[in-house]
Amino acid sequence: MTTASADDVGPTVRVGFLGCGTVGAESVRILTQRREAITRYSGVDVEVVRIAVRDLGVERDLPVPDTVLTDDPAAVVAADDIDLVVEVMGGTDPAGSLVAAALDLSKPVVTANKTLMAADGPALLDKARAANVDLLYEASVGGGIPIIRPLTETLAGEYVRRVMGIVNGTTNYILTRMDEEGAGFDAVLADAQALGYAEAEPSADVDGHDAAQKAAILATLAFGTRVHDTDVPTEGIRGIDAHDLGLGRRLGYVVKLLAVAEYDEAADAVLARVFPAMIPDSHPLANVRLSYNAVFVEGESAGRMMFYGHGAGAGPTAMAVVGDVVDAARNLRQGARGPHVSRRALHGIKDGADATSQYYVRLEVEDRPGVLAEIARAFGDHGVSLKSVLQEGREADAELVMITHASREADVDAAVAVAGGLDGVENVAAVMRVVADEDA
Amino acid sequence: MTTASADDVGPTVRVGFLGCGTVGAESVRILTQRREAITRYSGVDVEVVRIAVRDLGVERDLPVPDTVLTDDPAAVVAADDIDLVVEVMGGTDPAGSLVAAALDLSKPVVTANKTLMAADGPALLDKARAANVDLLYEASVGGGIPIIRPLTETLAGEYVRRVMGIVNGTTNYILTRMDEEGAGFDAVLADAQALGYAEAEPSADVDGHDAAQKAAILATLAFGTRVHDTDVPTEGIRGIDAHDLGLGRRLGYVVKLLAVAEYDEAADAVLARVFPAMIPDSHPLANVRLSYNAVFVEGESAGRMMFYGHGAGAGPTAMAVVGDVVDAARNLRQGARGPHVSRRALHGIKDGADATSQYYVRLEVEDRPGVLAEIARAFGDHGVSLKSVLQEGREADAELVMITHASREADVDAAVAVAGGLDGVENVAAVMRVVADEDA
Repeated sequence: MTTASADDVGPTVRVGFLGCGTVGAESVRILTQRREAITRYSGVDVEVVRIAVRDLGVERDLPVPDTVLTDDPAAVVAADDIDLVVEVMGGTDPAGSLVAAALDLSKPVVTANKTLMAADGPALLDKARAANVDLLYEASVGGGIPIIRPLTETLAGEYVRRVMGIVNGTTNYILTRMDEEGAGFDAVLADAQALGYAEAEPSADVDGHDAAQKAAILATLAFGTRVHDTDVPTEGIRGIDAHDLGLGRRLGYVVKLLAVAEYDEAADAVLARVFPAMIPDSHPLANVRLSYNAVFVEGESAGRMMFYGHGAGAGPTAMAVVGDVVDAARNLRQGARGPHVSRRALHGIKDGADATSQYYVRLEVEDRPGVLAEIARAFGDHGVSLKSVLQEGREADAELVMITHASREADVDAAVAVAGGLDGVENVAAVMRVVADEDA
Repeated sequence: MTTASADDVGPTVRVGFLGCGTVGAESVRILTQRREAITRYSGVDVEVVRIAVRDLGVERDLPVPDTVLTDDPAAVVAADDIDLVVEVMGGTDPAGSLVAAALDLSKPVVTANKTLMAADGPALLDKARAANVDLLYEASVGGGIPIIRPLTETLAGEYVRRVMGIVNGTTNYILTRMDEEGAGFDAVLADAQALGYAEAEPSADVDGHDAAQKAAILATLAFGTRVHDTDVPTEGIRGIDAHDLGLGRRLGYVVKLLAVAEYDEAADAVLARVFPAMIPDSHPLANVRLSYNAVFVEGESAGRMMFYGHGAGAGPTAMAVVGDVVDAARNLRQGARGPHVSRRALHGIKDGADATSQYYVRLEVEDRPGVLAEIARAFGDHGVSLKSVLQEGREADAELVMITHASREADVDAAVAVAGGLDGVENVAAVMRVVADEDA
């Protein structure tokens, strides 16, 4: 084993980029313009020597010579003068095979690609481990928020119990505005689209798929289990009614779209899900507004932690890419690598069928004698006890808002189905999980 | 340069502890009881083989044989069978010379000692760099909150503008209770002492000295400048009146004791200070309650980030120690080491004389014609403009509450001195900085 001397910067680590969209361009800009400061700080010199782009004809404002650009990503991966590969193309194809090819050549890879890591992360991490090089992906979850590295390194000896994140900026923006303005989902979505906070085709965000990819990555990392996004039961926010946000506020809750991964010790299994939930307004996640993201971690020793920041955007995401590049480059020069999560024990994966949760249930009812008793009996018959009940309105316009104690989710579903079929119940208007607040 | 094969755990890294109080004992417990899981996860095997304690006669419940204990810390540092030293004694003497001795022997050191790092951190980090080994200190600031590693690694390419932390749990606990109960400082302090949240001799906490040590460490790290705690102008919370917390709430502010480190590009200098301040109630730091800590970081690329969790306590602090031990052990086995902050450029240190800030000023005044005009003139004469004015009460019991726009602090001091001497002004009841909220 040899060690570099303290001030030996060593040969320049030559970096090849695959892709050069907004995140790629900003990463190239930071690595190039702050090169000297990065070297001084980290002890390693990094140079961007090749960038594969889709279309060489596009005008780009990059602080590198035009000769650095190519339209052949496979050649960048294979080139003898590329030591480290940064993948910022997105998607699984061809990004996945390019990343795999780089790892097969024992070249460390930095990726910002949540789609790829959610679909193939565990297999790629195994490949990286076999090749004894780093595959780093801080930018894939929470943009500029350092969350992957703390979970990997600082908490190396921790038993994580639960990870709960607001990991999609678009839905958090929409829910924040619905909450603060009392506006409806459709109106806020349209405005968010006009302002550029939501895509014209918003399904990846509002239906929870983007959050599910991040939930899979966080669950894989926190519990050392191979969780893919297809393992993540997912609900989006299209069905959220601003009326329930207002009622939630009155009851002390805020509605957020959460990516939740938890370990069930008895079942030795991990459950990763995405759903909108009411969380207590004193909970640290409750104050994460607009497009900000945050990841809340509960550990056996460290207790409750939260990591907050911009979950997207060129600057924050590029910052995470650059941090990973510097780390991987330093490891490469030192003949070292970081810890690999795939070394951990494998647990099973739960489907949520026997999960328990508190619930918020709103029923539109007729305000006449006996209805409340029948509804309460439907819940009691299924073993679901009620923590609070709020009845409002009169006669045909009445509504009944209930918060349950923690119950088996399947029992709540069954109770709600029975209650919904009762004569005096006109409509099941809302059913939403409630996050209990143990010690906020 | 050689690389370890993927599954080669390598020889056990033998750890010697200096000190075994609550943090030390919990660190030993985690390293011992989770040894197998840590190895599986991190690829390195760590064993606690020696623990230096002050008094061998004390009964201890440790999961190690009694033969591991010794009362000779220097022998632990020097022992051939100790590869890595963990310093959890606290204080500067003899901890400082023991840490230095370990580094001189090229043994990596993990420390939880904020007093030592605030007093001698820069020199010790230089020594670690010269010896080409790690000196890690995640536990010294923010207990179980990963903050040192994100600032060191994830943000390696970032230009940090400002770090602002709630880094003392005792003062935050006192301020939270004063705020929520309307109780006075003395009463809450007495209760906090009875409950074990404050020491019998509370000066290190309530006068801001503990926070100043952490401010020095954060400033050193964030700006690559050698800041010592003696460079940190410090104000505590003894003078805080619950009445101002109530008025602050009405104006949309919460009072917190902040450790603030910022870089002034024009002066090429760092200003690190500790003071109580009003922060907007929509700011992420505003909701950090009771003994929780949080560090808020503003970077040029990544924007606003916050790291939140338990700032103290055996479990959280031990978790940070264990993360550092695993990291240093892995680096040791790979012949590598992490980045060393002392490589960075050195900036000057500012004393705050020409700092600018918004201010909250409360004056007890006579409610008679002309007083407000005279006060406003005193501020205007010093170039301090008022953002809002609130006058309450009548006649001799009136008070005037002003929020200024950002102004030179020396000008505000001068204006307040003049206003305080005016005929109709009975008392300058409170002067406190206000943190502007750019984009919460």
